[in-house]
Amino acid sequence: MRIAVVGAGSWGTAFSRLLLGRGHEVTLVCRDAEQARAIAETGRNPRYLTHVDLSGVVPSPGLGTWPKETELIVLALPSRAFAEVARELPGDSPVLSLTKGLDPATGERLSTLVTSRPVAVLSGPNLAEEIARGLPAAAVVASEDEAFAEELQQAINSLVFRIYVNPDVVGVELCAAAKNVIALAAGAVDGLGLGDNGKAALITRGLVEMARLGEACGGRPETFAGLAGMGDLIVTCEARGGRNRTAGELIARGATPQDAVAQIGQTVEGLTTAPVLRDLSRRLGIEMPITEGVCAVLEGHVQLADVVEGLMGRRPTGE
Amino acid sequence: MRIAVVGAGSWGTAFSRLLLGRGHEVTLVCRDAEQARAIAETGRNPRYLTHVDLSGVVPSPGLGTWPKETELIVLALPSRAFAEVARELPGDSPVLSLTKGLDPATGERLSTLVTSRPVAVLSGPNLAEEIARGLPAAAVVASEDEAFAEELQQAINSLVFRIYVNPDVVGVELCAAAKNVIALAAGAVDGLGLGDNGKAALITRGLVEMARLGEACGGRPETFAGLAGMGDLIVTCEARGGRNRTAGELIARGATPQDAVAQIGQTVEGLTTAPVLRDLSRRLGIEMPITEGVCAVLEGHVQLADVVEGLMGRRPTGE
Repeated sequence: MRIAVVGAGSWGTAFSRLLLGRGHEVTLVCRDAEQARAIAETGRNPRYLTHVDLSGVVPSPGLGTWPKETELIVLALPSRAFAEVARELPGDSPVLSLTKGLDPATGERLSTLVTSRPVAVLSGPNLAEEIARGLPAAAVVASEDEAFAEELQQAINSLVFRIYVNPDVVGVELCAAAKNVIALAAGAVDGLGLGDNGKAALITRGLVEMARLGEACGGRPETFAGLAGMGDLIVTCEARGGRNRTAGELIARGATPQDAVAQIGQTVEGLTTAPVLRDLSRRLGIEMPITEGVCAVLEGHVQLADVVEGLMGRRPTGE
Repeated sequence: MRIAVVGAGSWGTAFSRLLLGRGHEVTLVCRDAEQARAIAETGRNPRYLTHVDLSGVVPSPGLGTWPKETELIVLALPSRAFAEVARELPGDSPVLSLTKGLDPATGERLSTLVTSRPVAVLSGPNLAEEIARGLPAAAVVASEDEAFAEELQQAINSLVFRIYVNPDVVGVELCAAAKNVIALAAGAVDGLGLGDNGKAALITRGLVEMARLGEACGGRPETFAGLAGMGDLIVTCEARGGRNRTAGELIARGATPQDAVAQIGQTVEGLTTAPVLRDLSRRLGIEMPITEGVCAVLEGHVQLADVVEGLMGRRPTGE
């Protein structure tokens, strides 16, 4: 298959490698001519996952410069760049979105911004760094167009990257967005030194509030209990190198959100998503106490220690 | 409340400390006179959590030697010792079980072995080591006797140990038993160096098979998604110091199960529970592929690497 991957960050880079491994022709649409030139000359991404061998990938210096006969466009962009790129997509090739977030301007699910062509989303516990090293992982592909989802499953599935089809686009996209916000809180638990018991309790209650929102939006409970829900939430909260977890840890230790992003040097989607998710939950009248707490701390309204004390000091109740 | 804690392992020790902190009178029923004498003389458990201050706890040198006016008996025993102690309990004081396992002889839930008195179980993400250090945690208490569960909630709940009441004894006990088996597999993922993506996928599928068995036995889906299910599973699979996770890691690196237990120096419940759980699932006709894989490796029928390859190489499917 002739595939254009748009976005040469960590995930776009690792995913291009996966596609090459399945024998596809891959064009990697870079941010600019300089990045594309470096990849063409060295076979390596100069900035992300610099050890990954990209020989065989055709780097393209920007949007609209990929070959006309592209059969699939893979979007691996930060959520804040998604809407503009989705609006300007040429041709009518179907789209697979790898982006985990919501549209910051409207709170919409990102796949709804792709119009006049089939669209699917891929999500799961997929740390790009591990996938780039060839370690095994699994993911779900969701689309309203079931035949398209199955075609993608056949095209991507391999012995190291197992693909399940899931019909629930709404649930998969909401999980992918919300888990980054819970991971900020999980990182804060680490930063405060509260331990693994407290973190496991937080992750459990985090999935409860993710599922509450998701079901209100029409998502299926099975999705929240699956790879895109629980699976991705666990890896995002537990893996030491995760960007959102790390940002939460740095903030709990006194960094500003801006400092944390500067230290991490990559997009931290949870910081963009948290207020968007909070506003969405309020519009729908859904309680998301962890997400509310994250926003209050990020906006400087409360101290983190007070949030923790408030959660532990509530009146005893049923589960 | 006058409380007798039976079993002076890590969890019995840490739980005694929690009860002291809530102002209860605690008798700690030890394995033998030597352990009791050491605690009486030093205010410390000589073998487990040796840093925990047990001043105020009355050590008792064995079963039947605690004061007659005990209002609650807390059983913190290995599952293989549970049935015998439960049979010989004096008086009619109600019982709270902390033990996570099934009766090895019959496959029965442990609380069913306690007769002629109210019984409850407590479970959740509760690493004893962290609780002994005063770090915050949460747990559920489940009993068919709702008033008893609420009484226990009032007696145990504190700012560092938050108690939720859950009516589902069956689900809570099956989660507590099964999670140790999944943790053996999670440890094996660590031992093989398969990464955090693979481990998150395993934990997710592990909870699916736990819930499948639990629902067949009459447990509620909410329990599996709650603290005793997902919460305890996460901490058992993720915390570096967890006994079952560590045993799985050692076995994946070439140790025999016996070597692993010797190195860990404490009960590894998953090794006792795995075949009991497998037999129970077969009797009920419930598929538990991870539990089957764990048993096959422990019994030496297959190589671990072949189990992993088999799981990744199955035909692509829906989630």
